[in-house]
Amino acid sequence: MSLYLEDLVVGTQYVSPEVTITADEIIAFATQFDPQPFHLDAEAAKTTFFGGLAASGWHTAAITMRLLVLYGPQIAGGVIGAGGELAWPSATRPGDRLHVRVTVESVSASKSNPSRGAAVLKVETLNSDDELRQLFTVRTLVFARPQ
Amino acid sequence: MSLYLEDLVVGTQYVSPEVTITADEIIAFATQFDPQPFHLDAEAAKTTFFGGLAASGWHTAAITMRLLVLYGPQIAGGVIGAGGELAWPSATRPGDRLHVRVTVESVSASKSNPSRGAAVLKVETLNSDDELRQLFTVRTLVFARPQ
Repeated sequence: MSLYLEDLVVGTQYVSPEVTITADEIIAFATQFDPQPFHLDAEAAKTTFFGGLAASGWHTAAITMRLLVLYGPQIAGGVIGAGGELAWPSATRPGDRLHVRVTVESVSASKSNPSRGAAVLKVETLNSDDELRQLFTVRTLVFARPQ
Repeated sequence: MSLYLEDLVVGTQYVSPEVTITADEIIAFATQFDPQPFHLDAEAAKTTFFGGLAASGWHTAAITMRLLVLYGPQIAGGVIGAGGELAWPSATRPGDRLHVRVTVESVSASKSNPSRGAAVLKVETLNSDDELRQLFTVRTLVFARPQ
């Protein structure tokens, strides 16, 4: 069921199932997009700030997006993010079982264009010990129900 | 040459070479991390908000990180981002040749821990027509030169 602007209710929450991230996946992602020792090599990572292998924050973000798309609000026209505030309070580690908790923070109609509006979603990425790996507060484009 | 906190100068800029993004790469990334029609299928994308195939914002972000790591400031201990403000003013398209322009926005020592500080980097991702595809203003951890 596709959700239009009128269907979104502030405070609604969505909690995804868990997905496990492996060392091999961390290394493969980092090799392509974030080639730094603490993301590439468990041994080399020991002497870095992280003290061991850590996932690229962008890997955490990408996994989060998959969970948001599959298990977050099923917005008509898709999840279209304009931007937002991103924070990585702690690094994702090999073996982390990540899930996403999405909260509808605000919903507003556009003043200039009645066919659309905006929703702010708080997207928390947590491991199974409820350690916060990422917080993304994103402004999304949402369409009004066609008249 | 690794840069410590004392070496970073506000206003310094770094401009990366270009990297071309293909439709196949857009679809492969989205299949894994952002499975929505406008990122997966050029034909299906025509009737969406984007009007054609568009890269996931997280794909733009991941490519940006690679360019930042390789061609941005070579910070001692690596590029360690705590978070920041992310915006996608326009979507990356197949065939875009992306480059990154990094500007050192601010540098500050930690008040509580003299061994470290923070730098704010403005990271702009542009195509060859200078269209801004992503703006990321990131707070990074930077170490002071060991005494």
